[in-house]
Amino acid sequence: MTFIDGGVCAAKGFKASGLHVGVKTKNKDKKDLALIVSDCECSAAAVYTKNIVKAAPLTITKENLRNGKARIVFANSGNANACAPLGEENARRMCSAVASKLGMDQNDVLVASTGVIGQTLPIDVIESSVGELVSKLSYEGSEDAASAIMTTDLTKKELAVEFTVGEKTCKIGGIAKGSGMIHPNMGTMLAFLTTDCAICPEMIQKALVDATNISFNRVSVDGDTSTNDMLSLLANGLAGNDEITAPGADYDVFAEALNILCIELAKMIAADGEGATHLIICRVAGAKNETDAETISKSVISSTLTKAAIFGADANWGRILCAMGYSGVDFDPGKVAIAFESNAGRIGVCEAGRGLPFDEAAAKKIISEHDVTINIDLNAGNAECTCWGCDITYDYIKINGDYRT
Amino acid sequence: MTFIDGGVCAAKGFKASGLHVGVKTKNKDKKDLALIVSDCECSAAAVYTKNIVKAAPLTITKENLRNGKARIVFANSGNANACAPLGEENARRMCSAVASKLGMDQNDVLVASTGVIGQTLPIDVIESSVGELVSKLSYEGSEDAASAIMTTDLTKKELAVEFTVGEKTCKIGGIAKGSGMIHPNMGTMLAFLTTDCAICPEMIQKALVDATNISFNRVSVDGDTSTNDMLSLLANGLAGNDEITAPGADYDVFAEALNILCIELAKMIAADGEGATHLIICRVAGAKNETDAETISKSVISSTLTKAAIFGADANWGRILCAMGYSGVDFDPGKVAIAFESNAGRIGVCEAGRGLPFDEAAAKKIISEHDVTINIDLNAGNAECTCWGCDITYDYIKINGDYRT
Repeated sequence: MTFIDGGVCAAKGFKASGLHVGVKTKNKDKKDLALIVSDCECSAAAVYTKNIVKAAPLTITKENLRNGKARIVFANSGNANACAPLGEENARRMCSAVASKLGMDQNDVLVASTGVIGQTLPIDVIESSVGELVSKLSYEGSEDAASAIMTTDLTKKELAVEFTVGEKTCKIGGIAKGSGMIHPNMGTMLAFLTTDCAICPEMIQKALVDATNISFNRVSVDGDTSTNDMLSLLANGLAGNDEITAPGADYDVFAEALNILCIELAKMIAADGEGATHLIICRVAGAKNETDAETISKSVISSTLTKAAIFGADANWGRILCAMGYSGVDFDPGKVAIAFESNAGRIGVCEAGRGLPFDEAAAKKIISEHDVTINIDLNAGNAECTCWGCDITYDYIKINGDYRT
Repeated sequence: MTFIDGGVCAAKGFKASGLHVGVKTKNKDKKDLALIVSDCECSAAAVYTKNIVKAAPLTITKENLRNGKARIVFANSGNANACAPLGEENARRMCSAVASKLGMDQNDVLVASTGVIGQTLPIDVIESSVGELVSKLSYEGSEDAASAIMTTDLTKKELAVEFTVGEKTCKIGGIAKGSGMIHPNMGTMLAFLTTDCAICPEMIQKALVDATNISFNRVSVDGDTSTNDMLSLLANGLAGNDEITAPGADYDVFAEALNILCIELAKMIAADGEGATHLIICRVAGAKNETDAETISKSVISSTLTKAAIFGADANWGRILCAMGYSGVDFDPGKVAIAFESNAGRIGVCEAGRGLPFDEAAAKKIISEHDVTINIDLNAGNAECTCWGCDITYDYIKINGDYRT
């Protein structure tokens, strides 16, 4: 398996485009409509936010996905179409507008929105721009689509991998957006994946749920779970492999590639959390089971005080042990070891639940790197889990103190 | 019931003192040892953090409280004596040092610490200063003790109330410290209460737990639950009422006074959250039951995005509805009404789960007040609950980016 270019258009037979129409901002450099279209019908799967307040597009996407088939993804940024007047009607109008311009079935559209909650979607503007968006579709359009789904994201998130199933070369690629309102249980606001691997709807749904649980669901930016989170995967089968319809060697190869793609996209989202200056990687080892390790790791990456300490490059391991302690997991604090690690080195700060004497300047240097790993050993078993987060900074407050107006 | 002056010394027969010895800082204006002593033996009760990583003083206090009796509270700030070498030994040495200077029993001491986790308590300095601390004891010492338990707190937190039990005037007073690492399940790091009301250990324990659940446990500053949280109540009986030994009218009067005292202290802690510029009051009404109302209210006051919006005086009600949605409570988003309220007025922003047109400037004026109430109506029942929090600001990040070094 190797990483390749091309993002959501890396797989055979997928075109994409992006367009500025003014839903997000008047700045014409900022695209806000994204379109992805497959050359043929796809097996399709999606996972959604667990927030009981769900944006209207999610309801419509769920309806359209009942038959496990789709071929179009249509998304806007700047307006979440959540808790907004005419929400479902406007989400349906997005589907029918794009399907009719493409000469396709409106039930084949997965529709998504991201942005401010509670404001009416400017559907007329979107409808009147669909023609231009369709005309821009291209096999090189991934970057345009990736930039069109950004809100407060600073970096475009595109990635693709190549692997072999039954001697056929297959690809999976995707685009994602994150930034704020990011918390375990669908850690990203939006991610759209495509593959040319032939795989049936049931098996991609399984692969997507499993991949989500070990990637996007292990990311936290600010503890807030969005109303609009959605991750979808379209599989058009153009790689020509025998369709994967059951577990087995082919499925395992596909699932592994998908897992790696999702983990890397999830890490990009954590690293580009609103205002973030650090990617925090929390690896919990020596746990009795993976669930314990995951719960503790999520508690640490979600701790506002730990995030503030990393921002200040302060080796305040007491806050880490504290966050472990209120995670709800039963463990022996007296056995815990904690070390900080980065490209600048590794330093142990806690052993058997007690502080170690350590060189503060060396610790500060290690934590000052962009990617900082918190290594925790519970010394109670062999299970482990890694979750990803980011620091909390002045810019997070600045961005979110006045996001809407 | 009326509010009175005197804090932890308002009740008859309680002396207090505070002293600078350098545990917290070299600045001689900053006291870091606090002492409270009753003229006679007290019924005593305490509640502790639910964090499984517990500071050593909590273990010793629990031991000393087994018989339900105590008469001394001894606390330091600047060092949490948590996850530190010789933790329990040093906590015991604090007890024996102060008891021996007072000529009292070391099992009658409730000991507490607050500050940095993981560093050895400078016990020698504390021991050698106990004589001076004891010599400063005074019936007017509440303010000194209140300032000595502060860490990043900006305001001293003292309060007392007066009420009548069986024709006798009784008083309850207390001091508290909060600021950071404040989250439901013992929302305060430390609070020490005293009363001259005669009440048996079983009944004050019950009253204290009940009061905690509707006050300190309904406060959040940053979602982090400290290792050192502790709330204690000493009752010396000097008011001369017939001892309260069972539920009934006398107990109800006592419990109501205690509840009000605890709620007001809890609100002071929320308002003085690290870096806070707003007290956020979240009142959830129309719930099926109080637990639902409390869970939703806590989710809203804990939402980093909602806290950032209040800091920016931005009426971003979508974030509030979003935080309600991921609270875990099952409710109908389509029935929800949300309004902001303060001394500057009241403005409805959401009705039946949809945004209302509203005057942005008027909303900004309302939210710019220091105390901001978020009124939520679920329109699903008659239960309600109020929780308290604060906004998240640049100063929170500044304070916590470099707290330890």
